[in-house]
Order: sequence, then C-alpha cells, then structure tokens
Amino acid sequence: MTEIERKFLVLNDTYKTEAFAQKRITQGYLNSEPERTVRVRTKADKGYLTIKGESNASGTTRMEWETEITLADAKQLLAICEKGIIDKTRYEVKAGNHTFEVDEFYGDNAGLVIAEVELTDENEAFEKPEWLGQEVTGNERYYNAYLSQKPFTTWK
Amino acid sequence: MTEIERKFLVLNDTYKTEAFAQKRITQGYLNSEPERTVRVRTKADKGYLTIKGESNASGTTRMEWETEITLADAKQLLAICEKGIIDKTRYEVKAGNHTFEVDEFYGDNAGLVIAEVELTDENEAFEKPEWLGQEVTGNERYYNAYLSQKPFTTWK
Repeated sequence: MTEIERKFLVLNDTYKTEAFAQKRITQGYLNSEPERTVRVRTKADKGYLTIKGESNASGTTRMEWETEITLADAKQLLAICEKGIIDKTRYEVKAGNHTFEVDEFYGDNAGLVIAEVELTDENEAFEKPEWLGQEVTGNERYYNAYLSQKPFTTWK
Repeated sequence: MTEIERKFLVLNDTYKTEAFAQKRITQGYLNSEPERTVRVRTKADKGYLTIKGESNASGTTRMEWETEITLADAKQLLAICEKGIIDKTRYEVKAGNHTFEVDEFYGDNAGLVIAEVELTDENEAFEKPEWLGQEVTGNERYYNAYLSQKPFTTWK
C-alpha cells in the first residue's frame, strides 16, 4: 500500500519506438488535494479508483490504494469529478530491470511528457534511457492532480 | 447506482427495543463536498468505500456507488480522511414492508438521532413508526458529510 517512484521530464520522442505497449488514459479527480487524492481512471477498456495520501519529504513515497472498477462505473464517476479531466497516452518502455511509464499528455496539457519508474526502495539503482531528462520527483506541479487544476499550457 | 431515501428526526428511543440488528459504524470523508462525497466506513467488522453525487431538487435522490473493502484498508484510509470522524450505532427496525435505519450518534454529534428509509421511487408510500419525527430530507445540515465538519453539538 506504499508506492515508491521517481519522475522525470523527457528529452525527445525516441521512447515511442522503444515502447512495448501503449494505452489511452482519461482521469479525473473526486479530490485533487495532495493529502487525500481520489482519482477515477479509464485505461484502455478498464476502470480504476485510486486513493493516494501525502508524499514523504523527498516526494518518492506515497500511500496508494487502488481497486479495479467497471468501465461503465468509471465513466459515471468521471461525470461528477472536479473540472479538469486529463487525457494522455501511456507508453511502457523497458530499461534494464525496470519499466518506465511515459505519459504523453493531450488537450490543456499538450506538450508535456513525463516518465516514471517504480522502485522497491528509495535508493534502488536503475538504468537511465538516453531520452530521460531532468528529474522532477516531488515537484507538485507535475502531479496529475495539480495538472488537472493548472494545466501545462497555462504555465508561465 | 441511484439511491432514493427519506430522512427523519426521531421522537424517543423506543426504536431500540424494536430493532432486529445493530452495528457500530465509524466513517470519515476523503471529500465532504455534496457534489462529490467520498466516504470511508467501518461497519461492524467490514469496510466500505462509497461515492455520492449531488442530490436532486427534493433531496430524495442521489447517485451512489459503493464497494466493500477490507477492514484494514478502511482503517488505513480513515487515517488520511478530513478531520471529523463520525461514530454512531445503526439500528435496523422493520416497519411494514420497509426497514428503517436509525443512527444514534456519539462524540461531537451526541444527542442526534436520524432515521432513514430507502424507497424504490420518490413517491412510494411507507408505514410511519410512532417514534418517527420531523422530516429532514434534503436538509444538508443532516448530511453525515456536513455533520463531520459542523457537528450537532456545535449548532446554535
């Protein structure tokens, strides 16, 4: 029930040719506060409800609870979410023993691409693909919940 | 996925002797806004996560989505809820073809007792027990989400 991950910007789109899978994601928030984020997601043909607590000081670790729900339920719950539905494609890319999830955003967040890698402990080493850019772990502006309220295209 | 119910105050505690079951409930909110209420509940030895949308004009009908979760998960989620955990005993009382749920509140809501009956349509008739008091359907002050933020003992 704890998620440890690091997050990076992406330098170019070569990750697309390396991806072994890609899925369309739409997601909204029943609460976008970082202390108690409640997310509704459709991912390909499945639905998910996910609850996250506050991050630790370094921003790597966060309580996460998730359950699969029907696609129909997810759509009905998306309809009562806060304004600011996020639309993106998630590419999965292998690098050594890890899989990076690379999110290419659309709509109000177009132009933004974020790569995440999940770790089993905060200091675990991992292979860095050549397209991996600046680390943004713990920067709340890159939280999807934040992006739903203050989209990338509105940033100064 | 739609809940139709009417809500009443209670005149005396004779409902207790008529009850065929009673269970202790604790509940908190990941979002207490009426437009997108997200509730975490423990009820006896089970856990539940419930999401409700906005009510219709008469206050009787509300979108409701619920899933059972483990008691351990419910306790972990209660720990990240907004301040204002609600503690109550729910008594179940038969009256004709319906079952009333009568909630006796403790703690900051001590002194408050609310009875609810679930209907299959808004105009369905139902038998009124002699202990049933004033109707408060649609009065947001009696929503548990509201009571978690503005408890009964703080009302003027």
